[in-house]
Amino acid sequence: MDAAEFRRRGKEMVDYVADYLENIEQRPVYPDLEPGYLRSLIPTEAPLEPESYEEIMHDVERVIMPGVTHWHSPNFFAYFPAASSYPAMVADMLCGAIGCIGFSWAASPACTELETVMLDWLGKMLHLPESFIAGTHGHGGGVIQGTASEATLMALLAARCKTVRRVLASDSKKSESEILSKLVAYTSDQAHSSVERAALIGAVMMRKVPTDQHYAVREEMLRKMVEEDKAAGLIPFYVKNNTKHIYPQVYEATSSSFSGNKENMWMHIDAAYAGSAFICPEFRPLLNGIEYADSFNFNPHKFLLVNFDCSAMWVKKRADIIGAFKMEPLYLKHENQESGRHWQIPLGRRFRSLKLWFVFRMYGLKGLQAHIRKQVALAKEFESLVRADKRFEICAEVVLGLVCFRLKGSNELNQNLLKKITKSRELHLVPCQLSGRFVLRFAICARSTESRHIQQAWRHITQLAFELLQEQPH
Amino acid sequence: MDAAEFRRRGKEMVDYVADYLENIEQRPVYPDLEPGYLRSLIPTEAPLEPESYEEIMHDVERVIMPGVTHWHSPNFFAYFPAASSYPAMVADMLCGAIGCIGFSWAASPACTELETVMLDWLGKMLHLPESFIAGTHGHGGGVIQGTASEATLMALLAARCKTVRRVLASDSKKSESEILSKLVAYTSDQAHSSVERAALIGAVMMRKVPTDQHYAVREEMLRKMVEEDKAAGLIPFYVKNNTKHIYPQVYEATSSSFSGNKENMWMHIDAAYAGSAFICPEFRPLLNGIEYADSFNFNPHKFLLVNFDCSAMWVKKRADIIGAFKMEPLYLKHENQESGRHWQIPLGRRFRSLKLWFVFRMYGLKGLQAHIRKQVALAKEFESLVRADKRFEICAEVVLGLVCFRLKGSNELNQNLLKKITKSRELHLVPCQLSGRFVLRFAICARSTESRHIQQAWRHITQLAFELLQEQPH
Repeated sequence: MDAAEFRRRGKEMVDYVADYLENIEQRPVYPDLEPGYLRSLIPTEAPLEPESYEEIMHDVERVIMPGVTHWHSPNFFAYFPAASSYPAMVADMLCGAIGCIGFSWAASPACTELETVMLDWLGKMLHLPESFIAGTHGHGGGVIQGTASEATLMALLAARCKTVRRVLASDSKKSESEILSKLVAYTSDQAHSSVERAALIGAVMMRKVPTDQHYAVREEMLRKMVEEDKAAGLIPFYVKNNTKHIYPQVYEATSSSFSGNKENMWMHIDAAYAGSAFICPEFRPLLNGIEYADSFNFNPHKFLLVNFDCSAMWVKKRADIIGAFKMEPLYLKHENQESGRHWQIPLGRRFRSLKLWFVFRMYGLKGLQAHIRKQVALAKEFESLVRADKRFEICAEVVLGLVCFRLKGSNELNQNLLKKITKSRELHLVPCQLSGRFVLRFAICARSTESRHIQQAWRHITQLAFELLQEQPH
Repeated sequence: MDAAEFRRRGKEMVDYVADYLENIEQRPVYPDLEPGYLRSLIPTEAPLEPESYEEIMHDVERVIMPGVTHWHSPNFFAYFPAASSYPAMVADMLCGAIGCIGFSWAASPACTELETVMLDWLGKMLHLPESFIAGTHGHGGGVIQGTASEATLMALLAARCKTVRRVLASDSKKSESEILSKLVAYTSDQAHSSVERAALIGAVMMRKVPTDQHYAVREEMLRKMVEEDKAAGLIPFYVKNNTKHIYPQVYEATSSSFSGNKENMWMHIDAAYAGSAFICPEFRPLLNGIEYADSFNFNPHKFLLVNFDCSAMWVKKRADIIGAFKMEPLYLKHENQESGRHWQIPLGRRFRSLKLWFVFRMYGLKGLQAHIRKQVALAKEFESLVRADKRFEICAEVVLGLVCFRLKGSNELNQNLLKKITKSRELHLVPCQLSGRFVLRFAICARSTESRHIQQAWRHITQLAFELLQEQPH
């Protein structure tokens, strides 16, 4: 494919993409096939000679599309939103063409610099404390990570490094491995599995703090665990808390308990999903207390119309996170190396800030706020429908775009309801577990979801629930 | 931007991309500006109201392009190639539109399954041992990681987990942190900084094995270090070796020394750059010995026309790498969960195998081999030019697309030559250090580099060398 053919095929693909997204509702949202379906549909080896573009596009519909879970269908209510917008897609085309590998300032100055400034823009949109903003003289600043898992891990590793150095400085008789074996990290018992993974990777202990009836970590409980661990000779060094997609109100109590950082613990706040909403003044109070955190991250690729992957992470002291990992072999050295980026696990990185730049400018802050508010209003609309039906109950406060609900009755009943929904393939939902109860999650996901889809989804769910209750023995 | 505007703007962007790549030679390959240049060119905050697309594209030329290091310029010979091709870019547009987050089979079956089959295709193109191929019944298989750094880290973590379990099983009195503190990993003293980072992250010791005059790890030397460490009560558990972009012939001796895995060490082979060349029979011998490895990776995003990011990693036993990290909360559970992917640090992942599928089919194996051979021939052409000039010397065997050369004389002389080259902005090169000598790396990078660019580059370098030698005191 030369440039001339790319001009033709690229434009055809633009139309294919627009057609796909405009007509996505007509496709079953969830595929109907068994694991291993794809292997038998294509050859066992790569072709020796080139094939035609037409053959490949024919196979996209024959092989790929039947196996796609359509995350951008207005009938997709599973997991969490995967952000998608046309400006982000256009920016990604440019990113692919520039194709620089931004592992240092010199490797493409625009890549590093636009990222720094875009994270400042975004931090200001969220009204993050000044200490998280890079500006021209700040000690803090932001970086784009691939996912929140990587942000959580980077924060834990930076905290680990900082704590080991601190303890060594005060007691040089201790060995590094002795210190490592005593480090304890804390997280909520409601936290994402990626936190446990981060502790596993970093080879440190992780304790889960029990939560209260609001699924919130209470200051007293965390403090008690920390005191007990210290009394046992351990070294509490990291607490990761959430403004999580289910319970964004959780972390405030905790953060305030470590003001002044007198415990020498690193506090990382993860608002993977909820963070985007904080650009709206009415949701910003959920972030109160952030001034006590050492690092913060959320995923614009979830709720802020920036295609995956783009997880935004800020730190108060860049030196903490850079210092933990910097190693500069000669082939990466450069006179302006301090402007480089060594804030993540991979060395190479794409020019992802272009997506942020295009999206922020094509929507404007008001356009982005309107998107958030629309999605939250759709969740409230669904909540009202559930609350109006006495057979159902709401299982957690609806704060943003997620509604946790269930049929009043057994877990088995709700499992059967979900099975029926999944089997129908008209909607897609996934469950969660709240205090031992099997709960259905209804997440507002696609940008194209409208009130009529909510109404239609509820009609469908109640119809299936009606059938299910009819089938019950009594 | 709605679908209609996307149809228009997306097509304009296709033309912009084609124009950019067709005329890239006219841009200075390396930017002429100071760190911090960008901040003053754009506002300090995101706009409140939407801006027009024209304004943004105007700013792409005004703000971004002057700060881009043009990796796809035929005059770019720095670092290593960043693969780029039109089929990969078209596939990436489709990837963005589908926009699924492939963290499990159910999250988009096609995403997981195409990846597994594409890694089988690619493994067969490289003639990897059968044990690395997933097929329908294999225990091994491949996965796409973002970068080789992540593959190195994943292999180290899998090895760490496996070793801790093995030692615990044989001696339950030992504590996990005691075992961890005794683990030792090994790598070549020529290895990439990402290996040290992996050890740092995994909190294990890393020893660098001294290399011989061919920059190769010798079996005897590694064996000696392992024996000494064992005698000192340590636990050798991981060896990472390279078929590195400078010296792909290095690792064979080492791999054969651990046949039968009698040392219980995990061997990871990284051929980040060189791996792509192994699809050509004449280069495949460089991979001999791979049958002794536990895991292997290389970057199609370097040399195989697949845009970044796409690092291909294979393991012999999927269970080793999955078992080290699997945690399945209810919201990710699915009846077909065994088909999911938990082989990497991030949970979410894009549909990157589409790029492989499009590239393999649009080029065919023969087209890909032709690309590799052309790039290697260009390196050989440059090598001949250097060898024909008595003022210069070649500093390492030219095996693939990299030529390490220098002016006969001091390091300072060569540093000055590089400064002149960089300042001229007609070419872009970076240095490396070989046995204490400052060496210039001339890497064949862009797909668009032709013989005339090599000739032109050499004329330019010799002209600058001539000027430099004239300026010398004697």
